[in-house]
Amino acid sequence: MRAVDLIRKKRDSGELSREEIDFLVSGYTRGEIPDYQMAAWLMAVWIRGMNRSELAALTEVMMYSGEVLNHSEIPGKKVDKHSTGGPIVAAGGLTVPMISGRGLGHTGGTLDKLEAIPGFKVNLSLEEFRRVLRECGMGLIGQTAEIAPADKKIYALRDATSTVENIGLICASIMSKKLAEGIDALVLDVKTGSGAFMKKEEDSVRLAEVMVETGKRMGKKVVALITDMGQPLGRMAGHSNEVAESIEILRGRGPADLRDLSLDLSAWMFYLGERTRNVEEGRRLAETMIATGQALEKFRQGIRLQGGDERVVDEPERLPTARLLFHVASSASGFVTSTNCEGFGIALAMLGGGREKKEDQIDHGVGLEFHKRIGDRVELGEPLATIHYNSDAKLAEAKSLIGESYHVGEEAPKEKRPLVRRLIGA
Amino acid sequence: MRAVDLIRKKRDSGELSREEIDFLVSGYTRGEIPDYQMAAWLMAVWIRGMNRSELAALTEVMMYSGEVLNHSEIPGKKVDKHSTGGPIVAAGGLTVPMISGRGLGHTGGTLDKLEAIPGFKVNLSLEEFRRVLRECGMGLIGQTAEIAPADKKIYALRDATSTVENIGLICASIMSKKLAEGIDALVLDVKTGSGAFMKKEEDSVRLAEVMVETGKRMGKKVVALITDMGQPLGRMAGHSNEVAESIEILRGRGPADLRDLSLDLSAWMFYLGERTRNVEEGRRLAETMIATGQALEKFRQGIRLQGGDERVVDEPERLPTARLLFHVASSASGFVTSTNCEGFGIALAMLGGGREKKEDQIDHGVGLEFHKRIGDRVELGEPLATIHYNSDAKLAEAKSLIGESYHVGEEAPKEKRPLVRRLIGA
Repeated sequence: MRAVDLIRKKRDSGELSREEIDFLVSGYTRGEIPDYQMAAWLMAVWIRGMNRSELAALTEVMMYSGEVLNHSEIPGKKVDKHSTGGPIVAAGGLTVPMISGRGLGHTGGTLDKLEAIPGFKVNLSLEEFRRVLRECGMGLIGQTAEIAPADKKIYALRDATSTVENIGLICASIMSKKLAEGIDALVLDVKTGSGAFMKKEEDSVRLAEVMVETGKRMGKKVVALITDMGQPLGRMAGHSNEVAESIEILRGRGPADLRDLSLDLSAWMFYLGERTRNVEEGRRLAETMIATGQALEKFRQGIRLQGGDERVVDEPERLPTARLLFHVASSASGFVTSTNCEGFGIALAMLGGGREKKEDQIDHGVGLEFHKRIGDRVELGEPLATIHYNSDAKLAEAKSLIGESYHVGEEAPKEKRPLVRRLIGA
Repeated sequence: MRAVDLIRKKRDSGELSREEIDFLVSGYTRGEIPDYQMAAWLMAVWIRGMNRSELAALTEVMMYSGEVLNHSEIPGKKVDKHSTGGPIVAAGGLTVPMISGRGLGHTGGTLDKLEAIPGFKVNLSLEEFRRVLRECGMGLIGQTAEIAPADKKIYALRDATSTVENIGLICASIMSKKLAEGIDALVLDVKTGSGAFMKKEEDSVRLAEVMVETGKRMGKKVVALITDMGQPLGRMAGHSNEVAESIEILRGRGPADLRDLSLDLSAWMFYLGERTRNVEEGRRLAETMIATGQALEKFRQGIRLQGGDERVVDEPERLPTARLLFHVASSASGFVTSTNCEGFGIALAMLGGGREKKEDQIDHGVGLEFHKRIGDRVELGEPLATIHYNSDAKLAEAKSLIGESYHVGEEAPKEKRPLVRRLIGA
């Protein structure tokens, strides 16, 4: 087999066999196939696409490029979600092994958020990770060299060759890592709208469909919720801010949209993890975990086991904060008709709450607080959002971007967009 | 400007500006843009294509990546052709500066053929090349590091990434080198049919059209002849064999098809080089150069000036020959209806008369002699071709391939295919 022939085959819209994909990906991971051949193949894949069996093969080969975790010594089902959730489900008796990424550009990463908690360690060894999982039923680590090394190497190359935004390649990247976590079931939260990676709902649905199908082919239970990111979820953006808001949710408080989504995701995890007979029961179990304080206790335990200062749960002011506040005022009276959610993410990154490059340091204290949501009445001069910041350097740019990202019109939008827009794979 | 954005633009079928193409190609030639980014861009170009102004820009940038020769100190027009021709035109008063390539796979290279002549040197310095040109009006060298280095580097990458067979990229590669030769006019011989790189006539025509247009945009006079390679040109294949056959042509003998094409190409060169007022006059001048022996004398002088043994002109047996002969007999009686000309090339390469890899040595003595052409009557057992060979190693494979490459049927084909099928740009 020669790489050059497999590149030609995909260039000419052919279908690659599992053996051929294995030859390319394993050879590349071992350093036997050079970057330039992989780059040409990735571009051919980007343009020509992959069918479902190619995609399953790619995901599986990437998954088996490293260690595939096995938590069979921990009783009960292991379930993960791609997005929000966690302590509620672990409190309810399932095991949640989370291997998560960092934020880049205007997107946030779970890993970075938890690191806002003083002392919280995400670079556990796989052995430590297993111990934490066994002890409290949930654990969070970053990508390691052992898990799906093919994805790490291929992702870096995609980033440099404009082959990132392709549904097949995104699916293989996410699913190879998730499936290597050693899970039985997976609940995916696929965002759509102005703040999402996929802006168009049809693209989010397609991505969700291929991820669900790929997971099912591997014998996992998988569902995906398509959720709206046409405006921020919750009231807060920024690392400390979002941790504090999560604690509110676990206390049974906090904004309704974020609470609802957390309960929905948890409900599906309980059901897929065979903890309840249906999703409605799962939802009730999730509500109970919050009402009884067990979810909050689970979060406290998780923080302690990963070296963090668990006192943040009762004293969120122990999280790093920003020194200065600026209120972004509305330049018109009317109703919020839509928001450019990506603009908020870019503004936050400008203020130090995100990375341009992987090496950049994050300021966990900076953040945004949203006072107005789509459909809300707003008066001229009334605050739309508050910026929590530490340096004036990019403030002017950030505040005008935030102002422009709120669209105020004469009339309130007719219909309210539901947060969970579709359910795939159920 | 960032390479990753230019890759994305082409990936999304956008048009790149001259500055953008220059940034990529010059950056790559200088080693500032890595192989993997160029590979991704080449694949995007292969699939999405380039429009005429992108193609002109690419050709020009590649041409100016190195030295562009200037022969203005030599009086008269400088004309080249891509394919057969040479001494006839130099004898007729034009200057023919040829920078040529080597053969690869089933294709032959002019450089390799001339090297069959004992002592013939093709690795002249540009200074020596100019001296030879001044003295005898023609010279032949291989690609040097000074001429179009971008093409050399890009070609190696295309070869390894399955991005060779693309009309735009082929055009830029050929034309950047030809235009760097310092010519005023160019006659292209674009082959079509089973023995050609482009098997389909419409592809050959498209390639010819873009090459002609690209040359004209650069202010050169260019025409292209689309010529048939549905069967071998002349009666001989192999390096010594083809040199000997060329000498026959220059003596006014040899096969009619090869003689005709040489005269046609020379006629166009005379006309485009403003040596004659029209092509017909050019044709008569070419015939005169042969009839008076001036063309043969020119070839003799050229060989001498490049260090070769000029006695081969009168004693072709001084060329390296093969020790052994094998006659491939027809397995049926009937008429030759078609040939798979590429099969002959592959058989020749098997016998040592071609390269698999660039480093391979060529056996100049091996060759093929074709006894039958399309339309010829053949009897069962009658020789179709004779193999000149030195080693039994691949003889069995080669002879069956040659046998299979002759198609013998009951009836002679109705129409004779003209050798020059179309004329582009005239």
